[in-house]
Amino acid sequence: MDERNIYLTTVPVAEAVERVRRALDRDTLLGVETVASHEALGRVTSRPVIARCSSPTFHAAAMDGIAVRAESTFAAREGHPVTLRRGADYVEVNTGHPLPPGMDAVVMIEHVIRADGDAVFLEAPAFPWQHVRRIGEDIVATEMILPQNRTISAYDVGALLSAGIFEVEVRARVRLTFIPTGDEVLDFRSRPTPAPGQVIESNSQVFAALVRSWGAEPVCLPPVPDDRAALKAAVASALEGESQIVCVGAGSSAGSKDFTRAVFEELGQVLVHGVAVMPGKPSLLTVADNGKLLVGVPGYPVSAVVCLEDLLAPLTAWLARSARPARPEITARLARKLPSRPGMEEIVRLAVGRVGDGYVAAPLPRGAGLITSLTKAQGLARIPADSEGLEQDAQVRVELLTPRESLDRVLVHIGSHDNIIDMLGNELMGLPEPVQLVSGHVGSMGGLSALRDGTALFAGSHLFDPETEDFNFPFLARYLAEVEVLVVNLAIRHQGLIVAPGNPKDIRAVSDLARPGVAFINRQKGAGTRILLDHHLKTAGIRPEEVRGYEREEFTHMAVAVNVLTGAADCGLGIYAAAKALGLDFLPLARERYDLVIPRAHAEDPRILALLELVRSERLQAAIQALGGYETTLTGRRMRPGEGLG
Amino acid sequence: MDERNIYLTTVPVAEAVERVRRALDRDTLLGVETVASHEALGRVTSRPVIARCSSPTFHAAAMDGIAVRAESTFAAREGHPVTLRRGADYVEVNTGHPLPPGMDAVVMIEHVIRADGDAVFLEAPAFPWQHVRRIGEDIVATEMILPQNRTISAYDVGALLSAGIFEVEVRARVRLTFIPTGDEVLDFRSRPTPAPGQVIESNSQVFAALVRSWGAEPVCLPPVPDDRAALKAAVASALEGESQIVCVGAGSSAGSKDFTRAVFEELGQVLVHGVAVMPGKPSLLTVADNGKLLVGVPGYPVSAVVCLEDLLAPLTAWLARSARPARPEITARLARKLPSRPGMEEIVRLAVGRVGDGYVAAPLPRGAGLITSLTKAQGLARIPADSEGLEQDAQVRVELLTPRESLDRVLVHIGSHDNIIDMLGNELMGLPEPVQLVSGHVGSMGGLSALRDGTALFAGSHLFDPETEDFNFPFLARYLAEVEVLVVNLAIRHQGLIVAPGNPKDIRAVSDLARPGVAFINRQKGAGTRILLDHHLKTAGIRPEEVRGYEREEFTHMAVAVNVLTGAADCGLGIYAAAKALGLDFLPLARERYDLVIPRAHAEDPRILALLELVRSERLQAAIQALGGYETTLTGRRMRPGEGLG
Repeated sequence: MDERNIYLTTVPVAEAVERVRRALDRDTLLGVETVASHEALGRVTSRPVIARCSSPTFHAAAMDGIAVRAESTFAAREGHPVTLRRGADYVEVNTGHPLPPGMDAVVMIEHVIRADGDAVFLEAPAFPWQHVRRIGEDIVATEMILPQNRTISAYDVGALLSAGIFEVEVRARVRLTFIPTGDEVLDFRSRPTPAPGQVIESNSQVFAALVRSWGAEPVCLPPVPDDRAALKAAVASALEGESQIVCVGAGSSAGSKDFTRAVFEELGQVLVHGVAVMPGKPSLLTVADNGKLLVGVPGYPVSAVVCLEDLLAPLTAWLARSARPARPEITARLARKLPSRPGMEEIVRLAVGRVGDGYVAAPLPRGAGLITSLTKAQGLARIPADSEGLEQDAQVRVELLTPRESLDRVLVHIGSHDNIIDMLGNELMGLPEPVQLVSGHVGSMGGLSALRDGTALFAGSHLFDPETEDFNFPFLARYLAEVEVLVVNLAIRHQGLIVAPGNPKDIRAVSDLARPGVAFINRQKGAGTRILLDHHLKTAGIRPEEVRGYEREEFTHMAVAVNVLTGAADCGLGIYAAAKALGLDFLPLARERYDLVIPRAHAEDPRILALLELVRSERLQAAIQALGGYETTLTGRRMRPGEGLG
Repeated sequence: MDERNIYLTTVPVAEAVERVRRALDRDTLLGVETVASHEALGRVTSRPVIARCSSPTFHAAAMDGIAVRAESTFAAREGHPVTLRRGADYVEVNTGHPLPPGMDAVVMIEHVIRADGDAVFLEAPAFPWQHVRRIGEDIVATEMILPQNRTISAYDVGALLSAGIFEVEVRARVRLTFIPTGDEVLDFRSRPTPAPGQVIESNSQVFAALVRSWGAEPVCLPPVPDDRAALKAAVASALEGESQIVCVGAGSSAGSKDFTRAVFEELGQVLVHGVAVMPGKPSLLTVADNGKLLVGVPGYPVSAVVCLEDLLAPLTAWLARSARPARPEITARLARKLPSRPGMEEIVRLAVGRVGDGYVAAPLPRGAGLITSLTKAQGLARIPADSEGLEQDAQVRVELLTPRESLDRVLVHIGSHDNIIDMLGNELMGLPEPVQLVSGHVGSMGGLSALRDGTALFAGSHLFDPETEDFNFPFLARYLAEVEVLVVNLAIRHQGLIVAPGNPKDIRAVSDLARPGVAFINRQKGAGTRILLDHHLKTAGIRPEEVRGYEREEFTHMAVAVNVLTGAADCGLGIYAAAKALGLDFLPLARERYDLVIPRAHAEDPRILALLELVRSERLQAAIQALGGYETTLTGRRMRPGEGLG
């Protein structure tokens, strides 16, 4: 099967873009058209624009006041006013009025002293041409207003109209067609519910939104099944349309149904297959026989975005001759080690927020299929091909996907997952000064590590210490002694065994997890819930090896519940709220305290103050109770060591 | 007339915005609506969005290859392959396929060795769940995908569709209406040619373009004349429409026809009249009786833009609950002193480019009426109200209006004006790697100063030294001895007296400038053309005081020609190209060398190399000759002292 590994020789991104630029003739590909100036925002001039009128076309008053002959005022000084008579010596003018013949200065109304009848006094001389907008001061007829290849700004629209230019010749908009492929993809237009093996096609709409944001025009076609002839027909037809670039979604990889390369080879010349970037590697660039660009866009959403943003965005800007909008950049401290395989550039999405005086960037999960790694990221880092990655605390250059200012309103949480955290995230966005909660779910122990490393503003934690029967404080004393913290309770919650509706495997206690035929789904190491499980297994005298599925780890209560819902597991340990959300059965096992651990150094941070105010509000406590499986008797209370469940 | 000075008490920008925020009830003003998810880019969610489907909805192959039971592969190692049989031990899968029942790992196709028939070998074990995308790995049904008040990104569109969310509830778009006013303004829709006293109305279209760029919706009405009843009717009618904000263009100043405040007072409560910012001061903010916002937008284009960008943009973002896009910022060295009147914040537009290792910012002319100061600026600086301005060479914080990267492609010219400079500006934008020429016209002497101060990459100069009959070199030796420069000729050009067609005042020589009844228009001090005039006046034995208009200064040949064209002057000294462009008569006086003076430190700068390659091209020389009044015998040649006109 090795012969299908067709892109062993990958090409760096810049080289891939350059190959396409050399292969396309942009002057032939993209025509020109004439548009009204007031509708030309964002369009690109195809020739210089020459002013038809001057602005102003006359000497104009630049202030409200009176027009005078400057020399008639030269004698004026304080206490020795000059008297001027209406009509003969002065004319009242408003801003923009033409200067009357013979007049060469304007005196502001504030400096005019009204005398009897039509006379006025001046107590200061006017100098020639004061407060006068001279002919052509702004724009001179016949001069160049805009050069060729200028992306027309809002201001340019004003300059064009002021110069009497009512239409402009611009380059046509770049058009890009997207053809999704695959037997398994469902057209979102039919509002489907996917069965196993099916996915809702969404890449075409991310494509469309990105293309619009580049000032270009997307054309999205319905999905084509995995059928070589059908794909060829669709691509050939798209090549005859108006688009300069035709993209095929997925199918450029090495699978047995990946026909994109074969079809492209029949229609043109392959330039690049395989780009030296992760994700995004299976990108395919081909110049079609009619001079257009064919692109195989990888199927995974994050790979597709890299292909679109790193290859197609610069190529579209080059075709359009517009400047490619650049992302703002900052330097941030890396919250966790970031290993990377040498030989490929790697793009890693990051959750970024201000912590103390600097920015902290926490790498998001790197799967190419994780569309939520796109939606949760505030920025991204590029690890060069020759690097093995970055160490924790390294300073990393971050390309921002959000305005820099917004990072000051990002509240970074790292720690245990709870459904109330999501609820807080929503409520914080409803404040008059919204706060964006960015939450990394690495378990309670991971949260304490993050506080020690200074990479989070607070951590959610529910660590139970069987010896003292207290929560969190024994662990804080052991693992976070050097950081002074506040501990504020979020809620008491109910943990238990989550099983399918009706409990078909008849699971009653932790001891049932050792039964043959029961598949368990566990939480990751360091999760408070896993520590709770281990405590209960130990109490029941069961070794981990006896639990089938003990090694299968999920990172959130909801993910555990989904495994049970779909039959991928029979049982998991989690909170009531997760079971209830998915209509599963729940066997209570323990009540526990879920606390917010807040370094005292951040206790007065406006984001933390907003969080605590929210936690202490009656409205939030009512909403927590409505979830079920929570008690709010301690919610918002500052906890002390030894209080247990209060 | 003092009673009309109604905004003596100005309010800082931030305070003005805050007053409006306190006066408006945004929840009532802006409703919600439901839109298709794939059309929701840039819209703002009005409630949290909950996932309907998980993604994936099943355990899915994450690679092309074979699905296996991991435990059946544990014995495999190099040289000791495990044999697997199709169907029983493995199933071929492509990326995205559901994992067959019982299988729990995927082996990449690259690691599968084909044996006889349906058998394959593996030489390495698979670990459980390798290359498998687990159920809900990306999105878990019932979890929150997006919080309220989230501005939907291109990525979010993908997440929504993947989660089976096909429509979302979002806040209505903010709508803003603009009503231009003034008897003197002409509706651009009628494609008018303005007579003296008239201007083409363009602010409404700058407004429309800016409002669109904020993600809001503009409504532009035709101009209303200076008639109080008509204005009131138009505003009242707009208040009944869908817009939350109604703007009136001009008329909020203190002139005798400024009815905006009076009309607003009849329809609501004035919150702010006069903002402590220049330009932009006459802004007027009023809450209407029906809860909407009324805005008096100043009439001058730069003032209007400040009102729109500094007051209306943040208020629109606040209404919409979207993040206001921030401008990138840099620090630049100030090319010239920037005095400012204390008591008012001042916004100054800047030409910005990279020079050497840093950025240099040259203040553009500050008239509130100069729309070209908007189109020519790469950035702006704010001088705080308590400052008297900034010194030359001060480090100044610049808000960029263009991507930071583009500054590396800005070629800063400071010096004498010539029409060929505009032509070069256009041609440089046509290069494969376009260069944006930013040109400050301060005369030849000003250009040499800029080179001494390191604020320009090159200077255009045509300084004639009567003693040696040479050009530029004697001045370079005197004023720029410390900077090593190259001098490259751009063209020999013809200077002469520019007079009205048919030469009605019968001007034949410089001596005629002393005649009574002849109005002259001069160039600014330091301009090579003024030095040439002074030389010819001296030769003719005429003192400057004898020339009427000697003190009236313009900064470009074209501005001089426009004065003659409109009758504002009878004669000026300038180049043939300017006279020809406006159809004026021209009396040749001198041939002179217009050279490009380039510091050797910048001689290898890619922008300078691009410039020189262009100057030396036959195409450009042909274009120069086509202008008339130029000779290209020296064009592109490196000049040496003493060569004169060659």
